[in-house]
Amino acid sequence: MVNVGIIGATGYTGMELLRLLMTHPKVDSLILTSRKNKGLPVSSLYPEFLGVIDLEYREPSLEILVNCDVVFFCTPHGVAQSMGPGLLELGVKVIDLSADFRIRDILIWESWYGITHSAPDWVSRAVYGLPELNREKIASAELVACPGCYPTSIELGLLPLLKNGCLELSGIIANVASGVSGAGRTLSKDKLFAEVNDGFRAYSVMGHRHQPEIEQVLSEMAGDEVSITFVPHLLPINRGIHSTIYGNLKRSGKGIQMLFEEFYRSEPFVQVLPAGSHPSTRNVRGTNTCQISIHQPGNANRIVLLVVEDNLTKGASGQAVQCMNIMFSYAESDGLAGAALVP
Amino acid sequence: MVNVGIIGATGYTGMELLRLLMTHPKVDSLILTSRKNKGLPVSSLYPEFLGVIDLEYREPSLEILVNCDVVFFCTPHGVAQSMGPGLLELGVKVIDLSADFRIRDILIWESWYGITHSAPDWVSRAVYGLPELNREKIASAELVACPGCYPTSIELGLLPLLKNGCLELSGIIANVASGVSGAGRTLSKDKLFAEVNDGFRAYSVMGHRHQPEIEQVLSEMAGDEVSITFVPHLLPINRGIHSTIYGNLKRSGKGIQMLFEEFYRSEPFVQVLPAGSHPSTRNVRGTNTCQISIHQPGNANRIVLLVVEDNLTKGASGQAVQCMNIMFSYAESDGLAGAALVP
Amino acid sequence: MVNVGIIGATGYTGMELLRLLMTHPKVDSLILTSRKNKGLPVSSLYPEFLGVIDLEYREPSLEILVNCDVVFFCTPHGVAQSMGPGLLELGVKVIDLSADFRIRDILIWESWYGITHSAPDWVSRAVYGLPELNREKIASAELVACPGCYPTSIELGLLPLLKNGCLELSGIIANVASGVSGAGRTLSKDKLFAEVNDGFRAYSVMGHRHQPEIEQVLSEMAGDEVSITFVPHLLPINRGIHSTIYGNLKRSGKGIQMLFEEFYRSEPFVQVLPAGSHPSTRNVRGTNTCQISIHQPGNANRIVLLVVEDNLTKGASGQAVQCMNIMFSYAESDGLAGAALVP
Amino acid sequence: MVNVGIIGATGYTGMELLRLLMTHPKVDSLILTSRKNKGLPVSSLYPEFLGVIDLEYREPSLEILVNCDVVFFCTPHGVAQSMGPGLLELGVKVIDLSADFRIRDILIWESWYGITHSAPDWVSRAVYGLPELNREKIASAELVACPGCYPTSIELGLLPLLKNGCLELSGIIANVASGVSGAGRTLSKDKLFAEVNDGFRAYSVMGHRHQPEIEQVLSEMAGDEVSITFVPHLLPINRGIHSTIYGNLKRSGKGIQMLFEEFYRSEPFVQVLPAGSHPSTRNVRGTNTCQISIHQPGNANRIVLLVVEDNLTKGASGQAVQCMNIMFSYAESDGLAGAALVP
Repeated sequence: MVNVGIIGATGYTGMELLRLLMTHPKVDSLILTSRKNKGLPVSSLYPEFLGVIDLEYREPSLEILVNCDVVFFCTPHGVAQSMGPGLLELGVKVIDLSADFRIRDILIWESWYGITHSAPDWVSRAVYGLPELNREKIASAELVACPGCYPTSIELGLLPLLKNGCLELSGIIANVASGVSGAGRTLSKDKLFAEVNDGFRAYSVMGHRHQPEIEQVLSEMAGDEVSITFVPHLLPINRGIHSTIYGNLKRSGKGIQMLFEEFYRSEPFVQVLPAGSHPSTRNVRGTNTCQISIHQPGNANRIVLLVVEDNLTKGASGQAVQCMNIMFSYAESDGLAGAALVP
Repeated sequence: MVNVGIIGATGYTGMELLRLLMTHPKVDSLILTSRKNKGLPVSSLYPEFLGVIDLEYREPSLEILVNCDVVFFCTPHGVAQSMGPGLLELGVKVIDLSADFRIRDILIWESWYGITHSAPDWVSRAVYGLPELNREKIASAELVACPGCYPTSIELGLLPLLKNGCLELSGIIANVASGVSGAGRTLSKDKLFAEVNDGFRAYSVMGHRHQPEIEQVLSEMAGDEVSITFVPHLLPINRGIHSTIYGNLKRSGKGIQMLFEEFYRSEPFVQVLPAGSHPSTRNVRGTNTCQISIHQPGNANRIVLLVVEDNLTKGASGQAVQCMNIMFSYAESDGLAGAALVP
Repeated sequence: MVNVGIIGATGYTGMELLRLLMTHPKVDSLILTSRKNKGLPVSSLYPEFLGVIDLEYREPSLEILVNCDVVFFCTPHGVAQSMGPGLLELGVKVIDLSADFRIRDILIWESWYGITHSAPDWVSRAVYGLPELNREKIASAELVACPGCYPTSIELGLLPLLKNGCLELSGIIANVASGVSGAGRTLSKDKLFAEVNDGFRAYSVMGHRHQPEIEQVLSEMAGDEVSITFVPHLLPINRGIHSTIYGNLKRSGKGIQMLFEEFYRSEPFVQVLPAGSHPSTRNVRGTNTCQISIHQPGNANRIVLLVVEDNLTKGASGQAVQCMNIMFSYAESDGLAGAALVP
Repeated sequence: MVNVGIIGATGYTGMELLRLLMTHPKVDSLILTSRKNKGLPVSSLYPEFLGVIDLEYREPSLEILVNCDVVFFCTPHGVAQSMGPGLLELGVKVIDLSADFRIRDILIWESWYGITHSAPDWVSRAVYGLPELNREKIASAELVACPGCYPTSIELGLLPLLKNGCLELSGIIANVASGVSGAGRTLSKDKLFAEVNDGFRAYSVMGHRHQPEIEQVLSEMAGDEVSITFVPHLLPINRGIHSTIYGNLKRSGKGIQMLFEEFYRSEPFVQVLPAGSHPSTRNVRGTNTCQISIHQPGNANRIVLLVVEDNLTKGASGQAVQCMNIMFSYAESDGLAGAALVP
């Protein structure tokens, strides 16, 4: 049993983490912190928890958090690198859902995030929290850097191909669409209902913060440099990421379906769909599952991968819980069972 | 532990029941039947179950179902009255989610549903499955008739007032709006996305099949005849019912908030919100919870109740599971724990 | 031909006005003002106008606006009362879409809006811009106070009944639902897409700013005091208001359908639907039309009116153009022709 | 002035055509035909036309239609090839919105549509109705085959590059997403609101009927064979197509923005957005405009085009009206003016 802290538990990933951990069989106690909402019950901000869980926000202080076995950061970038090392030095495990420890190259990180990194030493000690890639390292990690929502879906789609050297490393395209919760809950015109509803558009085509993370991890998988064209789009839905990934196989594509099925056969949260399938983001809503289907239209070398996940679950908080389960040797699906909420 | 059968497990209420029962701690085995889809895995129709549960549809025959302790009917009206008695006579408990056993007056039932009722004797033996009203009767019932989705929300809103004789019995208005899943999954033009999206309208203002059920149950609560004006509306959302109920208090309304809070204090699935609240259907999405808030605007006698539920959960399959839990003396929240999926 | 100014032309009503006036056959020139966006083309804020109209925002100064024949205020309350009198004294007609001149009782206005009214003399000189009620007064008005979006739909629904003394004046209920654009474009958490989508809720049940306006106008129609219960709700749609209005007829309801049809026979923008109809907000999307259907369910005295309008068109900018057409003796449908955009 | 007939005027493209033509300054009379709905007013099927236009459906007979100057086919494939030649031989111009005359190679057409083509001679005489490509041929055409909705957006995006020989002809990818109205109004489970809402998925990845049309036209533009990877997706919106098109430039991409701006400078319905823009489908809702933005992320040769159109307007009925205007030497924007309906 573990005592758990959630820092910055007022955004969508924090609330998703609370939703998952409140019924987790191995969680003994939960501390939510929010400087701004200190003393308020979580249900005053999120009425869906009324009568379901009775927790008040507390001050995010070391005194309070030191009693936790593990602390999750659901904070904007900059916070985990500032507060995390203090907790780590006291022996508290840290799972960071922000971008602070994802990018190994500090200069690249600083160029995208515009601030000086305050804990560069911990960057090299952090384990990238994609269980399908790093399960063993996660098991012994003190600090886990959870992948971004876009990177998770693209990396899980390409992992079997890159690990097996099947794909040409140039010319990969990830055309990805995300639900609005992926952009968080901070106020901005372009997230207003009347601006988003009944519309669809791309954004950040010239460069998105997730791009260096994606290229770093794909390159590690391939053992060689991979650069991709990554175009994110904004969907008028609450949750869900759909990646349509285009690549060229090195050889004729026979056996690719089987390659994927075997690669992911024992993974609890990756489902390879039957050939010819078209997964909807709805299939995985509220779950930690990633569904993948493989298509080879036209000539023999072109491959099209369709990958869906819930950006708040497998793309953030669910994956963080999966990492926690691995770090504490729990069953990997503890707290993550159940089917999607459809319709 | 129970063996459970679900008849007609291809619509939304059947799939919601499967979602709830597959993680229910007291369910030993599950049988899904569908004559049309016999032999197919449930994931072939509902890909969200792929890798989550491995079940095939079976023939809905007595031979197969007689081994169940309880059978749920998620069928159009007419089926439960035809197949249910055979199961009941063999000692299988039946929980009917259709309208077959809700209306005590056979003639009224037949006038609304347009067929001759084939099991009128069982109508009088059926228990109306609203736990907050009939918990003890449900505990010993052989046959439970689950309330309709609209009736559940209206009845839970009015129950404390009618039981305590606080409300004038004439002039009650229930202005109710439902998500599209409430209309089921059969094909019709008016359920097409491009017909529903970004629009809102009332329907069946001159008469809806749920009206006689509502009036029957409200009259039982009040011990006197209650007739209401009931206007349903169609919302461009997947799930959720929001009832705005208008009535006139017999006396000054002091203490009404407290009356509700005390009436529902020990109910696991009814939450009375703080005064001044405005519940959203989202607060209860995917849960068996009903949230109620009480307003007394303007003069002292007018009362406005806001009631939200998930039409597929507390309005159908969740309530059915709650009834099962009561019938088998399980904890009432078994299989029904957890917070709403928000956003 | 008229020269037209739009002050505060950066919100939804301002843009809707621009959409309507840019193809209006009698509009000679258009001036858009916005202090904040001075010098920017309108298409930089609203890319739908790119290549469609080439206009820059200008400073909202008297020097610029004095050349207009008519100026529309699409501003928050407080602005029209401050800038309007100066224009009026120079002979410029003013059509105010804000709440500044709607309420005759200054004290009531000040209690709802929380500021001291700076032009109380002009309140009594303003004409309430509901053409179906005040066409002649509008024709000779200098200053028109356009009705709010909610009031328009409720008042058009009740006008034939109140003018003809058919309705009991107590016990009227207006249960109304609005698309999100009705709340404007200023930032707030409760207008974020991920907070609104796939949900539905009431708000301001204990009191909404439109209530005194509605009661003032209904009382004028009835020649006696009318108070109503008004409950607004927020719909997950962009545009549209749907009012479900409940009342009690003084006499048996025979002939009410015909009464409405005759009352509105010559109105260009009110359509009485055939008996039994259920209008959708979609029917009038983007148009100045209001559709009404009349239902008399249950006993003879209860009447249920369904009224739909587009909150940005007949509920705001379209009605303002209709008023302008009347003020300048143009055909009332100039600039307002065409069918709704469906789907 | 022209007399116009619309055959099959009961689906979305038929109603969109009616919406556009009813205010067209050069349309003298309109005949709508529908065998099934003969004698019914159009407002009985589409209540948005109530009080707006008073037309009854008529029998689709030669006797009635021969008085038309031009007849539009808004019918499923197979109808225009059957009825069109009779009208053409009588001197009536035909604009076909279906797929009957788009594909020059009859065998390819028959392999995709599964029936024998009954008017192959007319296929070679038909002009492909993309004004930006074929304006002069359309002007003198008897029979126009309007492009499909997907092809229009892809072809307009690639036209300037292919005409100028800037693009490598292999490796082009069109990742396209369409609103649900693009799939028409016929009943199917996968178009039900509760199946589409709050979800997103690809479909027909292994082959879509629009693929041969796209490749045929792109090849004509390039003067050489072009094959593309085309992946359509279904958006939970009513209207709108968004194409994200990926290609490789033959040379460094300097000047591409200017190339597009010059190429489309005099086109009334193609807008090239400023560099760095991300058009939303909402920008063009209800209009005949296509907006394009050009991005060159990463290395110098990769180009990403974003193209939006309304699938019912520029993607179908609006383009058909544009063709009519060209055929009859009217101003090309007659009946097609005005800004998008936003929000």
